[in-house]
Amino acid sequence: MRNIKLTIEYDGKRYLGWQRLGDSEKTIQEKVEGVIKLLTGEEIEIVGSGRTDAGTHARGQVANFKTTHQMSLPEMQQFFNRYLPQDIVVNKIEEVPERFHARYHAKGKQYSYYVWNNAIPSVFARNTSFHCPQPLDLEKMQQAAEKLIGTHDFIGFSALKKSKKSTVRTIDEITITPEGDLLRFTFKGNGFLHKMVRILTGTLIAIGDGTLPPEVIDQVLADKVRQAAGETVPSHGLFLDEVYY
Amino acid sequence: MRNIKLTIEYDGKRYLGWQRLGDSEKTIQEKVEGVIKLLTGEEIEIVGSGRTDAGTHARGQVANFKTTHQMSLPEMQQFFNRYLPQDIVVNKIEEVPERFHARYHAKGKQYSYYVWNNAIPSVFARNTSFHCPQPLDLEKMQQAAEKLIGTHDFIGFSALKKSKKSTVRTIDEITITPEGDLLRFTFKGNGFLHKMVRILTGTLIAIGDGTLPPEVIDQVLADKVRQAAGETVPSHGLFLDEVYY
Repeated sequence: MRNIKLTIEYDGKRYLGWQRLGDSEKTIQEKVEGVIKLLTGEEIEIVGSGRTDAGTHARGQVANFKTTHQMSLPEMQQFFNRYLPQDIVVNKIEEVPERFHARYHAKGKQYSYYVWNNAIPSVFARNTSFHCPQPLDLEKMQQAAEKLIGTHDFIGFSALKKSKKSTVRTIDEITITPEGDLLRFTFKGNGFLHKMVRILTGTLIAIGDGTLPPEVIDQVLADKVRQAAGETVPSHGLFLDEVYY
Repeated sequence: MRNIKLTIEYDGKRYLGWQRLGDSEKTIQEKVEGVIKLLTGEEIEIVGSGRTDAGTHARGQVANFKTTHQMSLPEMQQFFNRYLPQDIVVNKIEEVPERFHARYHAKGKQYSYYVWNNAIPSVFARNTSFHCPQPLDLEKMQQAAEKLIGTHDFIGFSALKKSKKSTVRTIDEITITPEGDLLRFTFKGNGFLHKMVRILTGTLIAIGDGTLPPEVIDQVLADKVRQAAGETVPSHGLFLDEVYY
């Protein structure tokens, strides 16, 4: 049995997210599995590294599937990119040991959130960034971001009400980098809770525009109260950059 | 009478081009005039610096219109950006002398054409670049581009069969710059004939991949035969960057 690992780029705009929802045609997983069926004739379930929300993009989502089909990897990649819709591309294809599992073996992830920070909206960044017209204090946001580094219970920065599983995660690095009028917030860590990157970004923006004090971060980490944190910024500014194994 | 100059950014994907076509809702000019009507209550015709083709984008299209309306410029810009569709943005608004005419007074223009030059297609560049999977010889294209600099009859590099008006134009500068996997072809000159930038780019690409010899440029400039030049690359890779006055 071959175990095939795919690295996938997608524009999330038209989709309800990565994960298949019954028979919906509107998920990335369903589109990829559709092409696998075309290729192998089999109904094969593909394993993703994790969900991405409706509207969220990816530069490097990872998924794997098992097959006995003998097509060469370059041909298989071409087949995917011929039959997938234009907003989904297989960037990389590899054969991996049979035990490899895209979700269980993921050691960490990097996400980026893009903010268009100019009073005038942008035509070309409109589908891949959130428009924030008010000025943001970069240094203040960077200092506040430092407080998030390390191992914490992040439940107050997530959409979860409560959880049977642990909500403790480790963030290794947060960078906030201006790229012209775009501000790129990058988060690297061992895992992220539901909507956590969007709530962290919304909180940092609220600190940057003076709506919230930087101390709100310590408070939410200590009290675990979602309401005290900033807003959930929209999904179309978010990219899953990379999954680490 | 106030004379208002607009600098406009647009994503051409949904439109039949800049210039109004009867009652069609599908041109940028019609959308901008619609907002001017909402603002002033008057049917005012706006003058663009020139047409752009269906699907072509702009970062700096320029247009002007005359009105007695007294709204301040910042308010007027906000009004435009509130009521225009999201794929059209007024980047800049100025009051200019009454004699200013966006078409007659244009001294030159800069266009850029983007090529995604990687075997694997790009999800995020797909609407704003042309996918060219084969390798291109950058130096060869740059040398060939040098032959186009200066004042020539460019009719063989245009979609015009014949023309009563002069088809002589001056190109001041062509640069071909890699930006990651994107290749940006920039053309600066006093004016460009119908589809000229797209045919020039198509010809340079054909020279870069070895389909045509560099001498084809001298030949088309001398013989004025469109068929000898390269293909017209698609409109969605083309941007009107700037109009000079």
